[in-house]
Amino acid sequence: MSFQKLDESCRRLEALEHAMAILGADEATHMAPGGGEKRAEAMSTLAGMYHRQATAPEMGDWLAAAAEEALDDEQRAAVRELRRQYTNMTCLPPEFVERQTKARLRSEQLWRDLRAKNDWSSFLPALEGIVTLVREEAAMRAEVLGLEPYDALMEQYDPGNRVAEIGPIFEDLKVFLGGFVPEALAVQEERLSKSSLKPLSGVYPVEKQRELGLAMMAAVGFDLTHGSLSVSHHPFCGGVPTDVRITTRYRTTEFLSALMGVLHETGHALYEQNLPKGWSHWPLGKARGMSMHESQSLFVEKQIGRNPAFWRWALPMVERHLGESWSAEDILPHVLHVERGLIRVDADEVTYPLHVILRFEVEQDLLAGRLEASDIPEAWDAKMRDYLGLSTIDNPQDGPMQDVHWPSGAFGYFPSYTLGALMAAQQWAAIQRAHPSIEDDFAKGDFEAVNDWRRKNIWSLGSMWSTPELLQKATGEPLTAKYFEAHLKSRYGR
Amino acid sequence: MSFQKLDESCRRLEALEHAMAILGADEATHMAPGGGEKRAEAMSTLAGMYHRQATAPEMGDWLAAAAEEALDDEQRAAVRELRRQYTNMTCLPPEFVERQTKARLRSEQLWRDLRAKNDWSSFLPALEGIVTLVREEAAMRAEVLGLEPYDALMEQYDPGNRVAEIGPIFEDLKVFLGGFVPEALAVQEERLSKSSLKPLSGVYPVEKQRELGLAMMAAVGFDLTHGSLSVSHHPFCGGVPTDVRITTRYRTTEFLSALMGVLHETGHALYEQNLPKGWSHWPLGKARGMSMHESQSLFVEKQIGRNPAFWRWALPMVERHLGESWSAEDILPHVLHVERGLIRVDADEVTYPLHVILRFEVEQDLLAGRLEASDIPEAWDAKMRDYLGLSTIDNPQDGPMQDVHWPSGAFGYFPSYTLGALMAAQQWAAIQRAHPSIEDDFAKGDFEAVNDWRRKNIWSLGSMWSTPELLQKATGEPLTAKYFEAHLKSRYGR
Repeated sequence: MSFQKLDESCRRLEALEHAMAILGADEATHMAPGGGEKRAEAMSTLAGMYHRQATAPEMGDWLAAAAEEALDDEQRAAVRELRRQYTNMTCLPPEFVERQTKARLRSEQLWRDLRAKNDWSSFLPALEGIVTLVREEAAMRAEVLGLEPYDALMEQYDPGNRVAEIGPIFEDLKVFLGGFVPEALAVQEERLSKSSLKPLSGVYPVEKQRELGLAMMAAVGFDLTHGSLSVSHHPFCGGVPTDVRITTRYRTTEFLSALMGVLHETGHALYEQNLPKGWSHWPLGKARGMSMHESQSLFVEKQIGRNPAFWRWALPMVERHLGESWSAEDILPHVLHVERGLIRVDADEVTYPLHVILRFEVEQDLLAGRLEASDIPEAWDAKMRDYLGLSTIDNPQDGPMQDVHWPSGAFGYFPSYTLGALMAAQQWAAIQRAHPSIEDDFAKGDFEAVNDWRRKNIWSLGSMWSTPELLQKATGEPLTAKYFEAHLKSRYGR
Repeated sequence: MSFQKLDESCRRLEALEHAMAILGADEATHMAPGGGEKRAEAMSTLAGMYHRQATAPEMGDWLAAAAEEALDDEQRAAVRELRRQYTNMTCLPPEFVERQTKARLRSEQLWRDLRAKNDWSSFLPALEGIVTLVREEAAMRAEVLGLEPYDALMEQYDPGNRVAEIGPIFEDLKVFLGGFVPEALAVQEERLSKSSLKPLSGVYPVEKQRELGLAMMAAVGFDLTHGSLSVSHHPFCGGVPTDVRITTRYRTTEFLSALMGVLHETGHALYEQNLPKGWSHWPLGKARGMSMHESQSLFVEKQIGRNPAFWRWALPMVERHLGESWSAEDILPHVLHVERGLIRVDADEVTYPLHVILRFEVEQDLLAGRLEASDIPEAWDAKMRDYLGLSTIDNPQDGPMQDVHWPSGAFGYFPSYTLGALMAAQQWAAIQRAHPSIEDDFAKGDFEAVNDWRRKNIWSLGSMWSTPELLQKATGEPLTAKYFEAHLKSRYGR
């Protein structure tokens, strides 16, 4: 039976994925400094084995044959999702993939060096090559998938997301934020003018911050028998569902950044730990996509972790671990600080979407040929001035060179961040409708209801549905910005 | 060119080995407790991939074709060693390997349970099955390799080692120890009767012991940019040559066991870190075998780490890290303590070979059919009483059930431990001939000469020579027990 053959094949692929996931986490946390070269060699060889097996012609034959076999609904969905992966992995000719992989590696290396030197013009030729390749890639993917080019790129990260739906929503959000960012800043200023801010600085030993982080992780639902917390330069959530590795980094002068980072990664980890175990080796058993994943991390970081009700419970925890007493009035201005800034990854939840919308617009213009790579600095600067009132024209390092996505050719990914924020707010609204007093739970450190809802409506479903379908089924509505806007208004508005 | 094909194949095998080595080390050090089942699944799938690739028929074809190609000496040796691996891996029919693997797994699981219960008779049927299989295995290996059955088993661990050479040496050593163990114990007693022993107990925080261990590792030559020290339940040396993972375990009531363990594993690590890098993906670039590996760990633990000259330099280090001052007279009786005991892994260097010789003799009798599994307890007890004056007849847990080797079917391995001890002493004698004042170096914490000698004569040679050839070339003599006996006499005798 072909389904059985696919199942065995998926088990082999899972073993390679397992190895790559643990080797990847290990590299960032425990690898000896001189181990990098051999590790890179091993990882790329394993990735090659994975690709060869996942795209083997017999996979295509078995997929075709399995479609004729008597399968139940879940099995049919499993075959459909495996076929989706197979199509996404085979729709580019190997010769192109090789050329693109080399160009991406070269461009990423160049970017690392030239970003530090704030040198846009030396980087431009490499980026031009990347843009040419991504246009080719999008055209080929579009052809095979029967999608618009930008949709075909997004399809790799979030099956079902389309510019036709997202575009108007982002447009609406941009208009809203055009008015709301100044309002939130004014509200913040008024509050700060009334009472002075207790500065968020002190001496916080790493070991105590770590214990606080572990206690918070466990409280919001992280299963410490199936995961761990380490230190790495860039925080991440990696590993495998039975052994989720999350990391953070600590500053000993303040505790909030590490703690919020831990909550964010815990959100990713909860999704991984609660995926359907019986399908762990099939794409069906994996998380739906990048925007849904981000909605889970942002849910824990923003809906839970920056909720004033949460802090009623969290402050005694902070005091117990760090030996320092904070009032809600003192901590919340730090937790909810809003500021127009140049850097996306440092942005608060109010201004963050504008960073994403800017990139979403530039990416579409680049792909459509309305913009060339050489036009980026001016286009970027015009939008930054328009959306956030800041100029980066003389500072490409903190402008279009700030992110690794473009140097590495990952176009169509940026929307996921803000889609995640919208989807988290929409899920939160649905939960509040089902549990009107849910914030009282937070104040008691009780996250069972909120996790039960997410387990049932998101986590346990793996990749059963496309991204829009999953959101619609979970919340009863298609994607909308209205809950996110309402969330911002109630938290930051007048 | 077939050699090129073999080279590419070896690179793929190296990537899988890399993954398995790091996953193995990770499992014992950083894996979440609930991650074991999926890890075992991944490891066994990767091992299957490795086996399938290493034994693929085209490997045999390329090996045959490469023998006809114009190759230099190193390349010829590389092909020879790869052929040796290929022959050792393909000489058993897959049907037999599968049957044996299952029996071993079952027997090991059973052993873990029944050893704790001290229940020999329930374990016996499983062990009988293992003995039957190992007889079949040895016969098949012997047939293919043209060796005696026990030699064919040893060949997997130490190419070139033969009972005809080892047997008489072990016999000689057994006779020597029959007289020497009582002498060493008497000398010890006399010394202790003259001055009272400072007890080796106190409070030693793990972090301080760890810092001491790292400082000692670095001093004796461990490259901390290509390796690390962690904690695990059973100490080991794992990982890959560019990232060697060694572990220890700490007791906070004494510091010597962890420190000696670190030195032992550092000895293994030095071998790995100094193997010929250009051949790392070929068997030629790997350590020669188990007894040579053990000679390197024992060299650092015994020849260096238990040398009184070493302690002249080490004691100020101990004081600096642990804040406790010891005199050589106080510490050496602990470092050089001799005691007749039941457990091999706890034995000192004087009594240890008797544990090994006992097993070597029993294994040969089992293989030849002179002994059945059911006869083991009596045979064991008779030898234990004869060699060490101890009985285990009512205590199989601390007798023939104490080691995992037999339950897991690893016959022919035990000799490696004592061969390692003999070879370490023989290397030490050769080094002393070349550097008569080498102990003065130790007293200054200078291990350059001793490491240079080993790098040149052992480490950098990988698997260029068989075990006996390598020893002969390094020391100018075939294997002998005389240096080991002289070493014991000078350290423990009158």
